[in-house]
Amino acid sequence: MRIDIITVSPELIKSPFEHSIMKRAQEKGLAEVHFHNLRDYAINDYGKIDDMQFGGGAGMVLMIEPIDACISKLKAEREYDEIIYMTPDAPTLNQRTANTLSLKENMIILCGHYKGVDQRVRDLFITKEISIGDYVLSGGELGAAVLCDTILRLIPGVLGDETSALTDSFQDDLLSPPVYTRPADYKGHKVPEVLTSGNFPKIEEWRADKAYELTERVRPDLLEE
Amino acid sequence: MRIDIITVSPELIKSPFEHSIMKRAQEKGLAEVHFHNLRDYAINDYGKIDDMQFGGGAGMVLMIEPIDACISKLKAEREYDEIIYMTPDAPTLNQRTANTLSLKENMIILCGHYKGVDQRVRDLFITKEISIGDYVLSGGELGAAVLCDTILRLIPGVLGDETSALTDSFQDDLLSPPVYTRPADYKGHKVPEVLTSGNFPKIEEWRADKAYELTERVRPDLLEE
Repeated sequence: MRIDIITVSPELIKSPFEHSIMKRAQEKGLAEVHFHNLRDYAINDYGKIDDMQFGGGAGMVLMIEPIDACISKLKAEREYDEIIYMTPDAPTLNQRTANTLSLKENMIILCGHYKGVDQRVRDLFITKEISIGDYVLSGGELGAAVLCDTILRLIPGVLGDETSALTDSFQDDLLSPPVYTRPADYKGHKVPEVLTSGNFPKIEEWRADKAYELTERVRPDLLEE
Repeated sequence: MRIDIITVSPELIKSPFEHSIMKRAQEKGLAEVHFHNLRDYAINDYGKIDDMQFGGGAGMVLMIEPIDACISKLKAEREYDEIIYMTPDAPTLNQRTANTLSLKENMIILCGHYKGVDQRVRDLFITKEISIGDYVLSGGELGAAVLCDTILRLIPGVLGDETSALTDSFQDDLLSPPVYTRPADYKGHKVPEVLTSGNFPKIEEWRADKAYELTERVRPDLLEE
């Protein structure tokens, strides 16, 4: 998989890609991530990439011209499966979308910033718009990092232990049951007995019950679908 | 505002805090962010902070002892309004939660990692659990960065232009209307005429209509509440 990220602030999202799972995906040769600084495609020598909104209002808007230049250059080099725009006014990311995207070959991710991008960018170039949640961020960079993390960890071989990803929350529309580790007794707070019983069918039953109970209490909407 | 972030991988989330809005919040003295490496509180000289699950199953679990040591040290130094745990099996972050948290004084944010933390940590120390969305990440670090970004930008004085945050998506339960900037004609693709008309009441009406239309099409659930 190859991911090209277009941003006004590549330095801002570098560190998540240089550690943990996203680093491992790249080191194992299972994913390539490239950052493109939108300012390298500025419309003048002063690095202009944004301008005021037509019709007035606070906040700068990213111009179509530099974005067109960057996307066109990339598209001339290879085919892309998706050109994604990270923005709060879009369908919300969920595990199903992450699963689907983890099967793609090449993707561009465009990060919004300030008040967003000129609408014509969205109309002409973008194939998929994604929000990571119902809240506003300073820019699309953290959203892009979140999206990449959800996708890259699903590529076979990236996680050390395949079964770990399959038993995560949401893969079966249920939240995960509680987990415990040593010590069995911490200052009088004990691990539930069943977990140290060695009775594995009973443990599985306990976990299924707890997963259902937790989902019903915290996220009943997941059970309604 | 002071935020203390407890993580097994402080380097992973450093860069978002060193750029853009989160950097500005700190430079202006409006927020302090401190990172605490959980390994500094390991239970032995080998840096042990996690162990296998009781009852079997893939994935390591963060132990209670190092987390207790770190949180207790911080709590001995000052009062905390919230001790937050980032985890997918929790209520989902939204703009309302971000608004509320932006008024707090001191917060601890504990990042999960691997299979999560020992349930007793959640039962004994955590005052609020937050998920950033219905998808699984490698750890709570990106979630913590997202949460901090949504909060810090709301602190008065952090954004250059206060009105910009107020007209963002979700602040009025509607998505934002489309925005356009120069050029008015890009290779034949023109800006909607009304925006260059100078007729501001009409522009406001157009924007309200578009915001409603977009919300109805992309996120009808926001209108049902």
